[in-house]
Amino acid sequence: MKNNEQIKNQLKHRSIRFFKDRPIEEEVLESIFAVGQRTATSVGMQGASIIRLTDQDLKDKVMTVAKQPYIAKAPELFIFVVDLHRNMKIAEERGSKIEAPTMNHFFQGAADAYLMAQNMMTAIESLGLGGTFLGNILSDPDAVIESLDLPRYTFPILGMILGYPDDDPQIKPRLPMELRVSNNTYQTYDNYLDEIADYEEQSILYYDSREKNKRSDSFSQQVCQHMETRSVNRDEILKFIEKQGFDLGL
Amino acid sequence: MKNNEQIKNQLKHRSIRFFKDRPIEEEVLESIFAVGQRTATSVGMQGASIIRLTDQDLKDKVMTVAKQPYIAKAPELFIFVVDLHRNMKIAEERGSKIEAPTMNHFFQGAADAYLMAQNMMTAIESLGLGGTFLGNILSDPDAVIESLDLPRYTFPILGMILGYPDDDPQIKPRLPMELRVSNNTYQTYDNYLDEIADYEEQSILYYDSREKNKRSDSFSQQVCQHMETRSVNRDEILKFIEKQGFDLGL
Repeated sequence: MKNNEQIKNQLKHRSIRFFKDRPIEEEVLESIFAVGQRTATSVGMQGASIIRLTDQDLKDKVMTVAKQPYIAKAPELFIFVVDLHRNMKIAEERGSKIEAPTMNHFFQGAADAYLMAQNMMTAIESLGLGGTFLGNILSDPDAVIESLDLPRYTFPILGMILGYPDDDPQIKPRLPMELRVSNNTYQTYDNYLDEIADYEEQSILYYDSREKNKRSDSFSQQVCQHMETRSVNRDEILKFIEKQGFDLGL
Repeated sequence: MKNNEQIKNQLKHRSIRFFKDRPIEEEVLESIFAVGQRTATSVGMQGASIIRLTDQDLKDKVMTVAKQPYIAKAPELFIFVVDLHRNMKIAEERGSKIEAPTMNHFFQGAADAYLMAQNMMTAIESLGLGGTFLGNILSDPDAVIESLDLPRYTFPILGMILGYPDDDPQIKPRLPMELRVSNNTYQTYDNYLDEIADYEEQSILYYDSREKNKRSDSFSQQVCQHMETRSVNRDEILKFIEKQGFDLGL
């Protein structure tokens, strides 16, 4: 394997959820946002924006939506927003008549938001900070939209907390590479539990030996639970996207 | 601004579309995939997979879909796939009865795919290689799904080409940071064309002075064109996602 310092850092990624009581310096935030700003963007449209929450009431609201108490205590909390509001306004001011942005526009904005979030996370980790993504903000899109005053044609797609780590979690095992990368066509298997047997063992050990939230669990058990779970708002995310003014194209 | 080597690299990002006739060494590919494998993943579900295309006929097919001739000549071409097939199989083998994955599962897989793609791009650039993302594979999902034998509960969300650069494009200007990052609530403006005036000038200069594909254009002109454009398949992406077995939840 060909390595360098940066790749070594990337291979050490862990979710950091607990932070020192130390604010992130402005010059550090500036670097992190600069990396966000320079990230690749679909057709150059820059269809994503960031809301930085400094108001404790707002942080508490997001914490209530995402149901993770540590969120409210994180030094920094960002919400990544699919943002077609800005471009719709620009087009209108130039005289374009557009009924609504489409799901093509939505997915391009979502790609922009996710790419930006990961690029910033890499920068964050390179500076000795840490953080984690918050998918749980999708559990109540209306509450997030209302709290952050998000206008039509925007949608909160991902959250992130960050700070100086006061947390040292183990690195979580991952599925073997062969299961995630195929050549030319999608590789299927007759028996997936056979294929993941070693990884399953590693995952049992991981859950059983970690310091925080230790439990008897395994990857395949988590998969069953997760695939069986129905989550009203999150399964119906398209209704919220439509409510924000996007044309679902159906 | 607080800087380090890695952040400097990230700030230099440009899309590289033309490559030397030099294959990427196996040990380099191994590093790039290892970074993909270790990327943060929603609820640990690892709901994304990669298809690496080495077959020239398949590369040509993707090139035809994405309508960019340089794709077929790139040393490496990856397709990032939202992948709930694997987890559905694992759950079934363990006896779970699940009718269909939901849009919650879909978006988690999409997040995994996008985060993985950006994390790999950062690794790629740190190794002196370059590449670009291909959103255009969405112009004909059926053709990609058929060519790569993608089973139910999977969906091709993003492409990427990479190699040793034979291309030296200018760095493309970006919207000012203040327009993309708000504090606490979403910042709206009375007149967006006023707010972007300086950036608009930069974008005109950029299009007018670049070596390849030089033209008279501007950011706001591109925005109008892009927001006005209707693209049958891409606007109707949800129909293709539904066809792949996902429950749209509507």
